[in-house]
Amino acid sequence: MSFVLDWERTGRTGVAEAVLCDSKLPEQIAAILDQAIADRRRLLLTRLRPDQFHALPHSCRSGLDFDPSSRTAILGAPRPGREPKTGAVIVAAGTSDLAVASEAARTLSFHGYAAPVIADVGVAGLWRLMARLEEIRTARVVIAIAGMEGALFSVLAGLVEAPVIALPSSVGYGVAANGQAALHSALASCAPGVLAVNIDNGFGAAAAAIKILNLSS
Amino acid sequence: MSFVLDWERTGRTGVAEAVLCDSKLPEQIAAILDQAIADRRRLLLTRLRPDQFHALPHSCRSGLDFDPSSRTAILGAPRPGREPKTGAVIVAAGTSDLAVASEAARTLSFHGYAAPVIADVGVAGLWRLMARLEEIRTARVVIAIAGMEGALFSVLAGLVEAPVIALPSSVGYGVAANGQAALHSALASCAPGVLAVNIDNGFGAAAAAIKILNLSS
Amino acid sequence: MSFVLDWERTGRTGVAEAVLCDSKLPEQIAAILDQAIADRRRLLLTRLRPDQFHALPHSCRSGLDFDPSSRTAILGAPRPGREPKTGAVIVAAGTSDLAVASEAARTLSFHGYAAPVIADVGVAGLWRLMARLEEIRTARVVIAIAGMEGALFSVLAGLVEAPVIALPSSVGYGVAANGQAALHSALASCAPGVLAVNIDNGFGAAAAAIKILNLSS
Amino acid sequence: MSFVLDWERTGRTGVAEAVLCDSKLPEQIAAILDQAIADRRRLLLTRLRPDQFHALPHSCRSGLDFDPSSRTAILGAPRPGREPKTGAVIVAAGTSDLAVASEAARTLSFHGYAAPVIADVGVAGLWRLMARLEEIRTARVVIAIAGMEGALFSVLAGLVEAPVIALPSSVGYGVAANGQAALHSALASCAPGVLAVNIDNGFGAAAAAIKILNLSS
Amino acid sequence: MSFVLDWERTGRTGVAEAVLCDSKLPEQIAAILDQAIADRRRLLLTRLRPDQFHALPHSCRSGLDFDPSSRTAILGAPRPGREPKTGAVIVAAGTSDLAVASEAARTLSFHGYAAPVIADVGVAGLWRLMARLEEIRTARVVIAIAGMEGALFSVLAGLVEAPVIALPSSVGYGVAANGQAALHSALASCAPGVLAVNIDNGFGAAAAAIKILNLSS
Amino acid sequence: MSFVLDWERTGRTGVAEAVLCDSKLPEQIAAILDQAIADRRRLLLTRLRPDQFHALPHSCRSGLDFDPSSRTAILGAPRPGREPKTGAVIVAAGTSDLAVASEAARTLSFHGYAAPVIADVGVAGLWRLMARLEEIRTARVVIAIAGMEGALFSVLAGLVEAPVIALPSSVGYGVAANGQAALHSALASCAPGVLAVNIDNGFGAAAAAIKILNLSS
Amino acid sequence: MSFVLDWERTGRTGVAEAVLCDSKLPEQIAAILDQAIADRRRLLLTRLRPDQFHALPHSCRSGLDFDPSSRTAILGAPRPGREPKTGAVIVAAGTSDLAVASEAARTLSFHGYAAPVIADVGVAGLWRLMARLEEIRTARVVIAIAGMEGALFSVLAGLVEAPVIALPSSVGYGVAANGQAALHSALASCAPGVLAVNIDNGFGAAAAAIKILNLSS
Amino acid sequence: MSFVLDWERTGRTGVAEAVLCDSKLPEQIAAILDQAIADRRRLLLTRLRPDQFHALPHSCRSGLDFDPSSRTAILGAPRPGREPKTGAVIVAAGTSDLAVASEAARTLSFHGYAAPVIADVGVAGLWRLMARLEEIRTARVVIAIAGMEGALFSVLAGLVEAPVIALPSSVGYGVAANGQAALHSALASCAPGVLAVNIDNGFGAAAAAIKILNLSS
Repeated sequence: MSFVLDWERTGRTGVAEAVLCDSKLPEQIAAILDQAIADRRRLLLTRLRPDQFHALPHSCRSGLDFDPSSRTAILGAPRPGREPKTGAVIVAAGTSDLAVASEAARTLSFHGYAAPVIADVGVAGLWRLMARLEEIRTARVVIAIAGMEGALFSVLAGLVEAPVIALPSSVGYGVAANGQAALHSALASCAPGVLAVNIDNGFGAAAAAIKILNLSS
Repeated sequence: MSFVLDWERTGRTGVAEAVLCDSKLPEQIAAILDQAIADRRRLLLTRLRPDQFHALPHSCRSGLDFDPSSRTAILGAPRPGREPKTGAVIVAAGTSDLAVASEAARTLSFHGYAAPVIADVGVAGLWRLMARLEEIRTARVVIAIAGMEGALFSVLAGLVEAPVIALPSSVGYGVAANGQAALHSALASCAPGVLAVNIDNGFGAAAAAIKILNLSS
Repeated sequence: MSFVLDWERTGRTGVAEAVLCDSKLPEQIAAILDQAIADRRRLLLTRLRPDQFHALPHSCRSGLDFDPSSRTAILGAPRPGREPKTGAVIVAAGTSDLAVASEAARTLSFHGYAAPVIADVGVAGLWRLMARLEEIRTARVVIAIAGMEGALFSVLAGLVEAPVIALPSSVGYGVAANGQAALHSALASCAPGVLAVNIDNGFGAAAAAIKILNLSS
Repeated sequence: MSFVLDWERTGRTGVAEAVLCDSKLPEQIAAILDQAIADRRRLLLTRLRPDQFHALPHSCRSGLDFDPSSRTAILGAPRPGREPKTGAVIVAAGTSDLAVASEAARTLSFHGYAAPVIADVGVAGLWRLMARLEEIRTARVVIAIAGMEGALFSVLAGLVEAPVIALPSSVGYGVAANGQAALHSALASCAPGVLAVNIDNGFGAAAAAIKILNLSS
Repeated sequence: MSFVLDWERTGRTGVAEAVLCDSKLPEQIAAILDQAIADRRRLLLTRLRPDQFHALPHSCRSGLDFDPSSRTAILGAPRPGREPKTGAVIVAAGTSDLAVASEAARTLSFHGYAAPVIADVGVAGLWRLMARLEEIRTARVVIAIAGMEGALFSVLAGLVEAPVIALPSSVGYGVAANGQAALHSALASCAPGVLAVNIDNGFGAAAAAIKILNLSS
Repeated sequence: MSFVLDWERTGRTGVAEAVLCDSKLPEQIAAILDQAIADRRRLLLTRLRPDQFHALPHSCRSGLDFDPSSRTAILGAPRPGREPKTGAVIVAAGTSDLAVASEAARTLSFHGYAAPVIADVGVAGLWRLMARLEEIRTARVVIAIAGMEGALFSVLAGLVEAPVIALPSSVGYGVAANGQAALHSALASCAPGVLAVNIDNGFGAAAAAIKILNLSS
Repeated sequence: MSFVLDWERTGRTGVAEAVLCDSKLPEQIAAILDQAIADRRRLLLTRLRPDQFHALPHSCRSGLDFDPSSRTAILGAPRPGREPKTGAVIVAAGTSDLAVASEAARTLSFHGYAAPVIADVGVAGLWRLMARLEEIRTARVVIAIAGMEGALFSVLAGLVEAPVIALPSSVGYGVAANGQAALHSALASCAPGVLAVNIDNGFGAAAAAIKILNLSS
Repeated sequence: MSFVLDWERTGRTGVAEAVLCDSKLPEQIAAILDQAIADRRRLLLTRLRPDQFHALPHSCRSGLDFDPSSRTAILGAPRPGREPKTGAVIVAAGTSDLAVASEAARTLSFHGYAAPVIADVGVAGLWRLMARLEEIRTARVVIAIAGMEGALFSVLAGLVEAPVIALPSSVGYGVAANGQAALHSALASCAPGVLAVNIDNGFGAAAAAIKILNLSS
């Protein structure tokens, strides 16, 4: 089994290739990891379920920093002596959005950026968002996460100067439709300039944030 | 041509039957009006397009109070000497929502209720809503109108005690989908107790508000 | 783990914050409960699955009144010596709608309101609804629950003076589409003033009913 | 221009081929009519818009019995001395459904069946339906027409012995979705044995009714 | 636990009430059965999963004729000495449609009608349908079952005099969309008079067939 | 105004670039034509509405072979002395499909292929298709066109050896959904190997047929 | 008529409020313009149809720089002596996308940024994109516009370092679904970090680009 | 249990009937296999889950060449002494598409054709596709497999002469919608002549390729 990984992607686009695991077999994931280890590459794995992780051979698992909540795993140590760069803030409407927030935070971290997560600021209790607004306004880019109706995206985008990346989550039921309602709220927002990524796509939101942060590096 | 109008509806439900005109022929509308005139009934017509109104015989038109912006017409004078009752407030996110707001206000008025319209309070500029909040908080029932992503519904419902009737409007394009995104935001709202009616259904929102206001009459 | 609960919500809106559990981890739910216990707060949990309940530490479970059928749990005793207030009636088309009816009834009860549940009154056998009509007509607000085609909403709204909150349930298959057909029937109803909440949203229907009942308290 | 008409269809299936006109050019319709005239055939045309009718050559128009409201035209005289057979009843929820009702009635008439149209019996005022129930119960087959939420289908099917053919109409707006909500109500009906045809398909509903009535001829 | 069963339904509509089990708890099903046994009623249960059946108390199970493939159960013996009446034929496109065919056949049988099942006649091999055509043409009503693209409905309806009830099945994947494509083919059929029921609704198709067959009884 | 046309496309892919006109301004179309004339290129224009054609300057119009029914225009003469190659057959279910059939035929002709159009062979009268089957079986590739439920695709694909390109047309109403039902029938066909193109995409169906025919040239 | 414009929006978010005209009446637009003129404000109007523009009073029209192709109008002169800032590039797949490209370019210009438009680089002829790649790579932010299947977004995002804002256009037919297919391609892109805005939302894409460009100002 | 298999299909259409197993019971599959064994037929089974395979009687299993990854099984040995014919190439965007690729390859192999699989050539790293282009260009027919946004289809179709069969896979999440986004990209492709099959339909894509390859045999 041999795979063609796009190691040049960081050079070309500023963001590294990541391995989307959820429809791969454990033996396919293991073969990719072996190749990366042989090439002495760092590698980010996303949507790696615990059952997939535990089906990997021990030699693969031992080198991985696996986080079950965000379903991400990182191969390879952070570069020592480098302080992570700041600039991004992750804002999550509710506790249920924390897994997605964590996928975004770990992706940023893999690329050398640190981002605080500010949670429980859904608009049903607007004072909670207002209480954290000054902190959010310091960011150069904001990743906003919300499920259900996603009203947070518009409210936030009307209050800050930074570009807002709306990351709809699949939290909710009925017409929330696994994140569709929140996604449509992001795209149809009355606040100018909201940018959307796919539902639950913490990796993609972070990748876009990294591209924006790279501009000033 | 003879029609079976449900004159008993007000007694049974507290809201009068209204005639939805948009898929009726002018001669059908005229026949209904003739019947109401003969029975000395007041009657509310909704979704009456100007071309339909002008195709009515003069005898019908002359007794109608027609408002082209809300596409409503009222047959029969308001009952003299009766002050309209207060209690409802209509909150509209933008100028484009005023036609729907007007359908709701005219329906309330036909039933003896007065309701101020508070417009241009979309959440992209949250201070505009906050500036009117005290006024809104005096209402016993709030009709909130918004198109696009409908974030207004959740923000408002988190701030007031009165029941909030969300009236999604078809303002917007693309994924706003003629009001679908706003409707889904109303239904999937993170703020408890938002109640929704069909898109652009100013009559229905007012009918529900009337039923609530009737409780304390 | 620390959470920002919106304890002020009851004062601001008349309805308490509830914790939607289905996409939360047991340890997150436990931390929220610990915080509420420490703050001596009453708390309502919704969509708490039995497996989640049983994964909570015993200290959390012991203080909870858990009802597996409605998947609700209540922390804190009802205020002693207070008679629950009446005014709401819950009407359910079929036996399959009883779990959702129970979520609504328990939410009302948490807020100090009692509501009888009238079931098995689907319109395929209209006499069953007619037999209970006098009882239903005594209500100040009606929560109507139906899945499949949701014809109950229109029939009921044409017969009673009280506001009707249509609560579509996910009962059915094929084009019933997990409650979508019933929801659309509520929104497109030919009976004026039907108000809709999200599919299976017993909590939301009750929250709206509470806001209406609070008006006369 | 030559066309292959399926003249054998009546013999094979009991229902004659009809010409669906709305996406045909006037010259195509004219050529089909010329062929039928030459073959001395009777012919039913459906969805013939007035502008198409008036664009036909006079020789075609003169032999046609054109009804603009139902957009149907009939070529060829009814067979003299034959009484139309009874057995079907057409029940329409509202005045706006009369055009579709008329398409069904004219199709039945073309095949030698007479069917009364009973209108204005929508379920928002249930007494109107009850007042006509004895008459409806005499039918061997019922065609029920409703737009919006289509609650009429279930209520009616729970009250009569005859097979009920639900004919959803495109009356309504918003989530009524040009008849989709009514169609879904027909298909997801809680009353057993409701049969559905396509939205606004008066011809198809009548064709099915004819097949059922033919069984006892 | 007490339930309101509509025992009068057979008298009113010609079809008995059946109990849709899939969203009921075993104790609810048991209570309904107990009531029927106490009232000495025959009863049809549909969508009864094996796990539900086995969770019933033995006293309930022992009186039930349970068929796991069609997920139906019948309480009460067929009336002795009565020959089942003929007239219906069930035509199934493929082997995968046999479970739904069986639900329809068992419903017909419960009401005293016998119906042969003719399977494996999908249109991809048209000769298979042609080989059985004479047999199908003897029916007074045809129930046609197909999943995937449902082309069988149109082909069959163009070949027989009997009314055709199209019963779309959820067989297929991708755009077949759990029976949606087949349902749409039934409704948009180019063959006049195809009648549709909900996806996988073998009970409903049979109920409609029974109403048609009752006409000549 | 300058445009970058992909003249190399024929060499690279075997099919020439065509200009999709319907969302272009007349001056943009004119500029493209001027460039092609200057470069002495042949060019195919699709979806050119009569109003757009007539808004072109006379110099552009005069060199165009415009066909309003198929809304195609061809710039440049057919290569003289070259007999068009055979191999494709276009099969259309009904008269309403002829405009799309013509777009496909004109695209084939532009590329040097002739294709007969066989129409009025919808499956509601199966004998019409059977009568033309021998002719269809001579083709190396079949383009099949149908709207409504698109049953023709499966029936045809079960009867011929040639690859079948299903071209769904937007003929129909209600759930036919502007060709969606026919498209889904093509994709979910029970007959192996049906290939689909977009709704009303006569150009695309022909382009694919050309690629197949080119294989044996 | 009085309106509440959010003049503070530029200070708060970096992007000015714009007036979405398409569902406003000419007298509403005129009143807004009068207010802006009285307040000596610059103002951007989007989705202003020619018929709306021509219905404005002359006093309003004379101060407007109206561009019918992009349907934008600008009130107020550009600030003299200021060179527009560079950094954005607008890449459009085809000629049909130029109107949307122009809305984006005019919005950027209103905010003091200049952006070249690179058109006719759709991926069906990949060499055309490659020929312009060096120029595109100089941008700090790329707005990519494509309709139909929107493959341009992924290809481009895999080739450049700058953030890519995908702006789906409504060009196409059938399953292109007025831009839905292109939008879904943007959101489901296999290239990391593609950011999406609503269909045809040139203003929104530009607003987001402005927020990104403002970061380095 | 007896089944009507369409053994004549290969003769009539060039492709053998295959048995779609996923909604069949093991005893139904076993009966079909027994019939094929008795008739000494080769047979292809698709979508055979491991649990179904293991539930077959040993006598059935022992003659089957079962491949769990593609969920296909082949009954009967390849015809000895026959070299598989070449001409098709299977191009897969990613590792996750290999199961579907394998279904296509095994179907081709069953019919006597060999096809190499070229994987990991997604357009996010375009150089990977370019590196394999010469090899792909040798094919007479290309099967292209991609999930997510399916941009591969358009890019590839713009680069090769062979007909391109787009086989959308269900890889992806959110708006990828189990392959819908990739399917729509195939159908709305800006590259002329892309042909689509249903999502994950490796068998169908291969069947179409076989029909094309048969043309030159």
